[in-house]
Amino acid sequence: MGELERVPVGIVGASGYGGVQLVRLLQDHPHLELTYVAGNSTVGQEFSELYPYLSNIVHQKIEAYDVDVIADRCRIVFLALPNGLAYKMAPELLARGCKVLDLSADYRFTDLATYKTWYGMERTDGEINEQAVYGLPELYRDQIAESNLIGCPGCYPTASLLALAPLLKQGLVVPETAIIDAKSGTSGGGRHAKVNMLLAEADNAIAPYGVARHRHTPEIEQVCSDLAGREVLVQFTPHLVPMVRGILATVYATLRDPGLVREDLLTIYGAFYRNRPWVKLLPAGTYPQTKWACGTNLCYISIEVDPRTDRVIVMSVIDNLLKGQAGQAIQCVNIMMGWEETLGLPKLAFYP
Amino acid sequence: MGELERVPVGIVGASGYGGVQLVRLLQDHPHLELTYVAGNSTVGQEFSELYPYLSNIVHQKIEAYDVDVIADRCRIVFLALPNGLAYKMAPELLARGCKVLDLSADYRFTDLATYKTWYGMERTDGEINEQAVYGLPELYRDQIAESNLIGCPGCYPTASLLALAPLLKQGLVVPETAIIDAKSGTSGGGRHAKVNMLLAEADNAIAPYGVARHRHTPEIEQVCSDLAGREVLVQFTPHLVPMVRGILATVYATLRDPGLVREDLLTIYGAFYRNRPWVKLLPAGTYPQTKWACGTNLCYISIEVDPRTDRVIVMSVIDNLLKGQAGQAIQCVNIMMGWEETLGLPKLAFYP
Amino acid sequence: MGELERVPVGIVGASGYGGVQLVRLLQDHPHLELTYVAGNSTVGQEFSELYPYLSNIVHQKIEAYDVDVIADRCRIVFLALPNGLAYKMAPELLARGCKVLDLSADYRFTDLATYKTWYGMERTDGEINEQAVYGLPELYRDQIAESNLIGCPGCYPTASLLALAPLLKQGLVVPETAIIDAKSGTSGGGRHAKVNMLLAEADNAIAPYGVARHRHTPEIEQVCSDLAGREVLVQFTPHLVPMVRGILATVYATLRDPGLVREDLLTIYGAFYRNRPWVKLLPAGTYPQTKWACGTNLCYISIEVDPRTDRVIVMSVIDNLLKGQAGQAIQCVNIMMGWEETLGLPKLAFYP
Amino acid sequence: MGELERVPVGIVGASGYGGVQLVRLLQDHPHLELTYVAGNSTVGQEFSELYPYLSNIVHQKIEAYDVDVIADRCRIVFLALPNGLAYKMAPELLARGCKVLDLSADYRFTDLATYKTWYGMERTDGEINEQAVYGLPELYRDQIAESNLIGCPGCYPTASLLALAPLLKQGLVVPETAIIDAKSGTSGGGRHAKVNMLLAEADNAIAPYGVARHRHTPEIEQVCSDLAGREVLVQFTPHLVPMVRGILATVYATLRDPGLVREDLLTIYGAFYRNRPWVKLLPAGTYPQTKWACGTNLCYISIEVDPRTDRVIVMSVIDNLLKGQAGQAIQCVNIMMGWEETLGLPKLAFYP
Repeated sequence: MGELERVPVGIVGASGYGGVQLVRLLQDHPHLELTYVAGNSTVGQEFSELYPYLSNIVHQKIEAYDVDVIADRCRIVFLALPNGLAYKMAPELLARGCKVLDLSADYRFTDLATYKTWYGMERTDGEINEQAVYGLPELYRDQIAESNLIGCPGCYPTASLLALAPLLKQGLVVPETAIIDAKSGTSGGGRHAKVNMLLAEADNAIAPYGVARHRHTPEIEQVCSDLAGREVLVQFTPHLVPMVRGILATVYATLRDPGLVREDLLTIYGAFYRNRPWVKLLPAGTYPQTKWACGTNLCYISIEVDPRTDRVIVMSVIDNLLKGQAGQAIQCVNIMMGWEETLGLPKLAFYP
Repeated sequence: MGELERVPVGIVGASGYGGVQLVRLLQDHPHLELTYVAGNSTVGQEFSELYPYLSNIVHQKIEAYDVDVIADRCRIVFLALPNGLAYKMAPELLARGCKVLDLSADYRFTDLATYKTWYGMERTDGEINEQAVYGLPELYRDQIAESNLIGCPGCYPTASLLALAPLLKQGLVVPETAIIDAKSGTSGGGRHAKVNMLLAEADNAIAPYGVARHRHTPEIEQVCSDLAGREVLVQFTPHLVPMVRGILATVYATLRDPGLVREDLLTIYGAFYRNRPWVKLLPAGTYPQTKWACGTNLCYISIEVDPRTDRVIVMSVIDNLLKGQAGQAIQCVNIMMGWEETLGLPKLAFYP
Repeated sequence: MGELERVPVGIVGASGYGGVQLVRLLQDHPHLELTYVAGNSTVGQEFSELYPYLSNIVHQKIEAYDVDVIADRCRIVFLALPNGLAYKMAPELLARGCKVLDLSADYRFTDLATYKTWYGMERTDGEINEQAVYGLPELYRDQIAESNLIGCPGCYPTASLLALAPLLKQGLVVPETAIIDAKSGTSGGGRHAKVNMLLAEADNAIAPYGVARHRHTPEIEQVCSDLAGREVLVQFTPHLVPMVRGILATVYATLRDPGLVREDLLTIYGAFYRNRPWVKLLPAGTYPQTKWACGTNLCYISIEVDPRTDRVIVMSVIDNLLKGQAGQAIQCVNIMMGWEETLGLPKLAFYP
Repeated sequence: MGELERVPVGIVGASGYGGVQLVRLLQDHPHLELTYVAGNSTVGQEFSELYPYLSNIVHQKIEAYDVDVIADRCRIVFLALPNGLAYKMAPELLARGCKVLDLSADYRFTDLATYKTWYGMERTDGEINEQAVYGLPELYRDQIAESNLIGCPGCYPTASLLALAPLLKQGLVVPETAIIDAKSGTSGGGRHAKVNMLLAEADNAIAPYGVARHRHTPEIEQVCSDLAGREVLVQFTPHLVPMVRGILATVYATLRDPGLVREDLLTIYGAFYRNRPWVKLLPAGTYPQTKWACGTNLCYISIEVDPRTDRVIVMSVIDNLLKGQAGQAIQCVNIMMGWEETLGLPKLAFYP
């Protein structure tokens, strides 16, 4: 595919952190071209007015949402909006032949009753919803390749599920013992002016939030249940860490076979993720820092077994805005278009 | 004065960082007692609902502003409000016999035309304004002692003026060469939900703001002019640093007498601040970190002379919310009441 | 007790963070007076040369360790040394009539075989070791009151045990389900020049370490076993957070009686800690930030029950250098001397 | 040039932050290939043992320094060593036909007496030193293109000189009024275990250091003098900021012609940097954050004029390890090899 044939791409709702990641990633993608950005309160502004570091670099006006314009100008559309909006837009975009990737929670649930319970909105679009595929390529690559509607995973579920999947898939742990203690940088809260996200409030401190009731719980449980072949409930606790980007999930579970040692699990994980270029398994005894993954689409995973307690402890780190959001969406596009999964995505962090 | 005779104190506008510092400081003051807190949108709440770390520790309801109630219950009133409100309240509080300390900019200017130029509001209360004293005790202790109306200094002016005062007072530098490059933690922006103050935006970065037009400039110039005995303009540039508290002012000025050495200036500063318990002069060659002052009412000052350029460089650090705001206000109260200047104020940081 | 009768106190090994906290705390204690500081490579220096923010404030020379001098000048001695030194010094100090508080791990274990397993050193001082009391006053106040030798707890065990104790003591949880996911600021690593503790390395990131083998594990287990009345193993995972001070322990355990609700547990914890002034139980639904406790000797505790999983999640925060180390040591001294437990210790943080 | 003809590159001293940036940058460069890494105490290790995030990604053994091996395997050699070593190695590497880029201070000074004054080492290699070009491409591109020996600039000089150059070159300011107040992340201190660079020490604080005597001063002055056509002394003050990467230089100077306004200067800077792809001039009124440049080879510049004081204030930000060090070295290589100046270098940050 030559320069002249880049696939035109639109973003609806580009003012937030998810949106700016997409804009940024598209600068480097050899086969995609940003041709449309829709906003709401920012219509008419240059995108670089929202992010001045892009002045004289990104030249893109923010337009009002217009489905005909999009259909005319884009083959692929990213929806980066608050929950509850995408499911009203996606059907008309699909009908006009666009491929749709939704970064909100709207298309993450196979059972809309679960969506209603946790997100509060009544949905009657079961038919369209059934077409949606959960956009975690390490688990659902084949389905993604054949779908036009992707429900992109949440940041916490991405980190948590990549850590847990081999254990559940292979039946190595007792599913209900799974505890996910997750830690995130504050960019996960989005570009919204909230007092508790001020540097003055959130710096010099770590704190839990949403204990026993965070909305990413049912999303994790849906995939865990799928992997385990039966309904699974997990314990999930998020924490706010004084850093901008990055998620660490520390996952605990009790081994069914207490005879398993760390090296066994490294072998199993190695096989499970063999053709998954974005998952990097760390050498025994090496634990990851979140910033190893920051600025990339990578997920680093480390495994430890505690023979005293018969538990496995899996640690995974990702960049919450890339592998946890916009990068993974581009990864899905690569798969949907039949390109290399790694195309145009950042592959290695700068350290420190 | 016994326990039973504590002086009753009120705070109008206690929901911000200045307010919570006052509430916190009053917990430890042996002669003051918080008896009244007025709010606006928070009326009816427990103060600890705004700052949950005070739950079961501080028991104080937030009331609506009522001048009769205040006059009845308080002898001293702190006004911790946005600019432009205090000058409407202070006259009626003074008329009822309260001592008033205003933490906003309303009473910092002897010339109300300057206030109008920089803050935009027309004022016709020149008579009351003339009673106000600029609450920087290291320079105006005697006037503070005799006043009932204190315009408490801004955080940047406090750090800047303590660094500059001896130089200007003794005529050691060319006043118009004074450049103040100041760096502040983000709590100086207050407890307001603003995007640019989010941890995600302000962390991992330093940035200038308000270059050549920050409102603390005329306040610094007013006192510099007073010290120099003629009108002085200064260059003042603030920066936002990824930390919660603290201000560092790095001040440059050209020496009139290039023969002066560092030790000369240390002697002069030592004499100037001899009876000023909150100013700590550092040994030659030791430069301060902002956090040395954090959690205290101290100002650490360090002096360097560059014989190559004939300049003096003075570095001063304070806690922007204590010596730069609420602590200094309590210091003024101590002076107004004839108590020890250091009474009930935190004297030494915990390090690191 | 008047000013003239302050109890003289010595510190052996004051150059680290534990030492400087003790020095700082002693500035404010009404009944204790620092009369002696022993160092090693720093002998002959002023203490303030190590911590320049104390220049012209703390005047104390660092001396060589000399047991006769200590016995002559001190009634109470804090040992703030690397592991494996205190057990060689304490006997001779006790023999000369000093009360000894050891901040290292040397006197934390009732079973010296455990010490050998985890710390590697052979010990033959079982008799003296038997006199040692584990210095966690919320659990062992009476024993501390009657002892002359205190093994001060580690920072992680303090936070972990205050979170777990009521559950184990009352038999409310299945002990072997206890998982402690702990997060600490980097000051816990001490004032040692280590590459992984550089700001450049540790900032902008969170990372686990010592997974399934951190030395604080057996210390936590010893007390848990004591509380549960039988041997208990726990899962303990520490993490390094990009902040200076503070520990958060997020503790998970499965309830024996799934009918228990959050309010039940709040009542039980309230009763358990009724006369424990340094433990603050938070209102239902309020979770603590580490910095609420920083600069104080407080421990804030929050409790959540997940009825979906039958687990209790307890969150506790402390200042790792105060309640987790030096502050708790002073708290023990207060108890040993028959004073108020809160005497001379910082009671409330400055926020933010 | 095809894949098979990549130019082989070696790094001597790759364990530090400069080294790891080079290794990382070379992963993405289409025409360069890392073929050799020399170390000292790390000989025999895998490079990824030093930086575990590169495990299974970078496969490169660390070898002992051997000039014959280098000459055999490399056409370009980066020296990333402490000051005082490169000038002993470069001559023999040049003699064997290698192009040499030195990241230390050894080849930055045209006058070796200046080197001696500030770095303390006696040098007798004036002849070789005369061949060295100061590797700041925005000022010395033509000379770099023709040289085989580059003295790569320090991080502070890069930020400072890009801010000052147009002013001095065009004679717009009084040179001796130039004051550079610079702020750096702590990675500038290198990967050395130093107590003052610990997160516990450097976080939550900003502090000046090296006031009036930092070694980057003469380097800045040499280029300023070159630009001004006469000897210039500048005031330079560095500060340590609690962040990992990034430098902000806030530069003050008095305008010769007080009639100049901001827009005039924007025009002049625009012309000066027209064909300099790594310098981005910001729109009027927009001031840069350091992190806009982080992870890239960019320098963002903003200009303000204060008509009250007749001063210009120029603010520039760079990534201290890329444009301030390793990225700029690759930029020099691109020029030396006749390639596009931007080849293979990171062009745009991820925000936030």
